Amino acid sequence: MLNEDVRLISVDDHLIEPPHLWADRLPAKWQEVGPRIVEDGDGHQTWQFEGTLFPQVGLNAVAGLNVEDFSTEPRRFEDMRTGCYEPNARLADMDQDGVFGSMSFPSFSRFAGQRFLEAEDKELALACVQAYNDFMIDEWCATDPERLIPLVIMPLWDASLAAAELRRTAGKGAKAIAFSEGPAKLGLPSFHSGGWDPLFDAAEETGLPVCMHIGSSSSMITTSDDAPYAMHIGLNGLNSMIAAVDLLWSPIPTKFPKIKLVLSEGGAGWVPYIMEKVNWAWTRHRHYAGLPDTPPDEVWSRNFFLCFIEDVFAVEQRAKIGIDNLMWEGDYPHSDSNWPNSRNRLEEVLKDVPDGEAAKIAELNARRIFNL
Amino acid sequence: MLNEDVRLISVDDHLIEPPHLWADRLPAKWQEVGPRIVEDGDGHQTWQFEGTLFPQVGLNAVAGLNVEDFSTEPRRFEDMRTGCYEPNARLADMDQDGVFGSMSFPSFSRFAGQRFLEAEDKELALACVQAYNDFMIDEWCATDPERLIPLVIMPLWDASLAAAELRRTAGKGAKAIAFSEGPAKLGLPSFHSGGWDPLFDAAEETGLPVCMHIGSSSSMITTSDDAPYAMHIGLNGLNSMIAAVDLLWSPIPTKFPKIKLVLSEGGAGWVPYIMEKVNWAWTRHRHYAGLPDTPPDEVWSRNFFLCFIEDVFAVEQRAKIGIDNLMWEGDYPHSDSNWPNSRNRLEEVLKDVPDGEAAKIAELNARRIFNL
Repeated sequence: MLNEDVRLISVDDHLIEPPHLWADRLPAKWQEVGPRIVEDGDGHQTWQFEGTLFPQVGLNAVAGLNVEDFSTEPRRFEDMRTGCYEPNARLADMDQDGVFGSMSFPSFSRFAGQRFLEAEDKELALACVQAYNDFMIDEWCATDPERLIPLVIMPLWDASLAAAELRRTAGKGAKAIAFSEGPAKLGLPSFHSGGWDPLFDAAEETGLPVCMHIGSSSSMITTSDDAPYAMHIGLNGLNSMIAAVDLLWSPIPTKFPKIKLVLSEGGAGWVPYIMEKVNWAWTRHRHYAGLPDTPPDEVWSRNFFLCFIEDVFAVEQRAKIGIDNLMWEGDYPHSDSNWPNSRNRLEEVLKDVPDGEAAKIAELNARRIFNL
Repeated sequence: MLNEDVRLISVDDHLIEPPHLWADRLPAKWQEVGPRIVEDGDGHQTWQFEGTLFPQVGLNAVAGLNVEDFSTEPRRFEDMRTGCYEPNARLADMDQDGVFGSMSFPSFSRFAGQRFLEAEDKELALACVQAYNDFMIDEWCATDPERLIPLVIMPLWDASLAAAELRRTAGKGAKAIAFSEGPAKLGLPSFHSGGWDPLFDAAEETGLPVCMHIGSSSSMITTSDDAPYAMHIGLNGLNSMIAAVDLLWSPIPTKFPKIKLVLSEGGAGWVPYIMEKVNWAWTRHRHYAGLPDTPPDEVWSRNFFLCFIEDVFAVEQRAKIGIDNLMWEGDYPHSDSNWPNSRNRLEEVLKDVPDGEAAKIAELNARRIFNL
């Protein structure tokens, strides 16, 4: 069971970038073209960046709503809980949720900073990435460095620039980087290309985990235009399965044996199936298929880490997944979050798990993996 | 354990269409444009259809090769085991493999007959579909109707034509139809559209299971062009996961409560994860997402059926998957098959399973589901 003294750490939450983030940090020449909040005339607030409007101001920021209202996207900052974009209010919401520590992914910037990859002016884009990271470390997490864990984004268009930004931010306290679960889907070098070696080298050297959130390939699995919206939710773990197999069969875990690859919001109950399949395919097909020499099982427990919100089957299968490889996530303020009942729900999910294992899942693995 | 008196039935094997299949059955006016085997001048045989060459004569027909040679595609019929395309030789290969019964999907025609969907002349295409089905019933399976189980293909471009062909072939002994796991991916109406109601109605009325093989959407999951070939193999179960969720959240199981939906070659070890995810999403998101009223759990055990080659984890999780929903497949003559050791391998996989459950998986479920 989950003991009272375990301090719950969520390795996947989300923050809504506040209006002043880039306004405070970009030089005067970029105030007009950089990301800023404007009124759209219909009473909605919207991001504007390089002259383009991005209507969703608080992507799926529904914490506190009833399930019947989950489809409602907030239209103004005042439609959201303040904890979405203000760190003191976030800490209060975490207290209410029974959560001690939290690492947040960005929203407008997209989960791995794809927004700035899509930017026309890459000099501006780099300044935006750095402003986000400085906000994350110097403002958001500085509010309570023991409880708020800095996750930084990378300039995805250049692996050497990314490595430099990783080192710069690691030097000032970053604890992890966000990266794409499928860079080839973004038109970037694949995991097989060697093109990301400078970045993975920097991540290995600094010990910073590489966190790949579902959707950070800017693609989700769909079946048809007339399928229900919830199709995405039922299938979103497949993004992590694809990233896992792609990385397992790439040269990366062999070349960077200490790399920490974290699959964020993809659940974990699928691991026993996928690992059996991958080990079987490795045994049977490696002779002609150019697979790595190391059996996938070995690489898995050493380099791969997962998290879940309330994946009962993953908890049941924790030995096969790896009791040292599994963490908890809250997903605040998204619709899959159990806020303000996260701790209560996790207590239920872990009630039959030995105390030491429950503590690993809820707190200790995150502390070890993220060097907290 | 698997008792000696259990007669193994494989619900997913493959046949290579023999050269005479369409030559014997199409009228004279279509002999030239219909599918026929030609020499390509390099010593290879190839299919020609409507003037186009389709170089792979025996898609992945590697039974009997060593794993080191699995990448070798046969270039002539004499490069394959005769059992690939001749039913008496197939029965002998089944004997050697310890297999009693077998249901085969097509090869040149593609797993759900997509080849004829792609044809220009749809009158010719329908004649080709019917010729395939007549060959399947009157020649292949007529060789030993107790052991060879007729699976027929549909004219995918027209649901009413398909319903008529289903009824025609059911009337002469067909036991199942092949259909696409993702019709929308083929440019056809989705599972959500109602466009397939005539076909599902005919399938329900006749009791013929609808078998959806991985790849029958003509698409497999890839990550990048430079990824190893084996990526497909590691990820091919995802095709079945996608089809399962798509169908679960479609109106089909509600509208056709007796329909039998068989996911072929997609494995089964993923079911507990996916079903937990789907049930959770249904509970949380059905209010706005237009999901069916029936909880997915209920529909699952009633309408969905799976098979595996040697999925140890699926066998371990058989209670969660449904002990009445799980079947065995041999996959002869493809590279994932254990021929000629299928029975030996299945004995190992089932060694700790109670006899009655092992018999269900190996034989009795197939007999019940396919009305054998």
